[in-house]
Amino acid sequence: MSSNDTLARLAAVIESRRGGDPERSYVARLFAKGTDAMLKKVGEEATEVVMAGKDGQPDKLVAEVADLWFHTMVVLAAHGLKPAHVLAELERREGLSGLEEFALRKARDREQTESGDA
Amino acid sequence: MSSNDTLARLAAVIESRRGGDPERSYVARLFAKGTDAMLKKVGEEATEVVMAGKDGQPDKLVAEVADLWFHTMVVLAAHGLKPAHVLAELERREGLSGLEEFALRKARDREQTESGDA
Amino acid sequence: MSSNDTLARLAAVIESRRGGDPERSYVARLFAKGTDAMLKKVGEEATEVVMAGKDGQPDKLVAEVADLWFHTMVVLAAHGLKPAHVLAELERREGLSGLEEFALRKARDREQTESGDA
Amino acid sequence: MSSNDTLARLAAVIESRRGGDPERSYVARLFAKGTDAMLKKVGEEATEVVMAGKDGQPDKLVAEVADLWFHTMVVLAAHGLKPAHVLAELERREGLSGLEEFALRKARDREQTESGDA
Repeated sequence: MSSNDTLARLAAVIESRRGGDPERSYVARLFAKGTDAMLKKVGEEATEVVMAGKDGQPDKLVAEVADLWFHTMVVLAAHGLKPAHVLAELERREGLSGLEEFALRKARDREQTESGDA
Repeated sequence: MSSNDTLARLAAVIESRRGGDPERSYVARLFAKGTDAMLKKVGEEATEVVMAGKDGQPDKLVAEVADLWFHTMVVLAAHGLKPAHVLAELERREGLSGLEEFALRKARDREQTESGDA
Repeated sequence: MSSNDTLARLAAVIESRRGGDPERSYVARLFAKGTDAMLKKVGEEATEVVMAGKDGQPDKLVAEVADLWFHTMVVLAAHGLKPAHVLAELERREGLSGLEEFALRKARDREQTESGDA
Repeated sequence: MSSNDTLARLAAVIESRRGGDPERSYVARLFAKGTDAMLKKVGEEATEVVMAGKDGQPDKLVAEVADLWFHTMVVLAAHGLKPAHVLAELERREGLSGLEEFALRKARDREQTESGDA
């Protein structure tokens, strides 16, 4: 199964939980609690990704990134958006070249300044 | 094009930048700076997702989630991992049912305690 | 010099930068850019505290916590608040006892649930 | 009571919980769980500060900053450090002047680059 199916199907499952019983579904509960509860989870899971990245344990890192992506998908759903929108945005930055050109210039200048001050 | 293709191709581009010229590639620069620089970006982008989520502007939210996913993919690459590993982990939590059952029990108990204390 | 003086004086310096020349003062620049720029810095510096905490280097940790406290003070100032308000809130939780009783009950229940699921 | 007393006394209370009964003290429980649990709380509370800052509710913001400072103090304690170390670091950046000069140059160059690319 392609990942397209994975993310699209996961998004469909998330969407199906909207308005569901908060006593029976974690996602329904997040929808019931509102976007603040979802965004708080994004902050938590990002912190866990950072800590797993420092630890360098691959399995843990994969699990934490999965948690982070999952909760960002819930946030997207709450705003009527799908992973396809994010993938389209990533596609738009085609081959990274445009992104890289922009980000590189920023990063280079920043470092020159910082090293100049060190 | 499926999202699998999108993510796999993006991962391939990221991988191709490893060891590249930091003066010409943003990703090569991140690789050269090391995992701390990558993880710092994950924290930054997660904060931007949270802020975009509060603002509720769909375009901004999509762009910030794309930034966040992109930088987590760089972190994955630095650890020899691919988006496919994350997708497999999401697949493993098939239909959310296992995840939901677990997370729901946690969330329910937590709220009961909190409301009991309020 | 007491920490009260330190924090109060730092807050006064921050306040004095409001409306200042963004070309000559970092804090004036943050005020000019608005609260989003300040909050983004809070997210960044918190990530750096987490990473420094993982590294366990005391000097680095102290510097990152100082950065984090400093930027939270700028956020406070932008909302017409002072460190004294935060200290009063910490005082209010006198001796931690009230806080601890509450937080402990939450944490205990959460862990029982989690260990029950593990 | 000066804030010096506030932070120093709070630090003393935190220190007194080290090795205490995790069933009776929230801080003892954090010590028992280890630095990862503490750092995770820093990430969580920072996210809550960001969200409170977006909401612009002063009382909520003060409470969240208090939570954040409190948990950074627990992290400091776990590394044998005190708030006095952070305050000394803030003092060292006397009057912000040194800090501002450095940070301003960085910020200015960064923005010039970004606006040049917009």
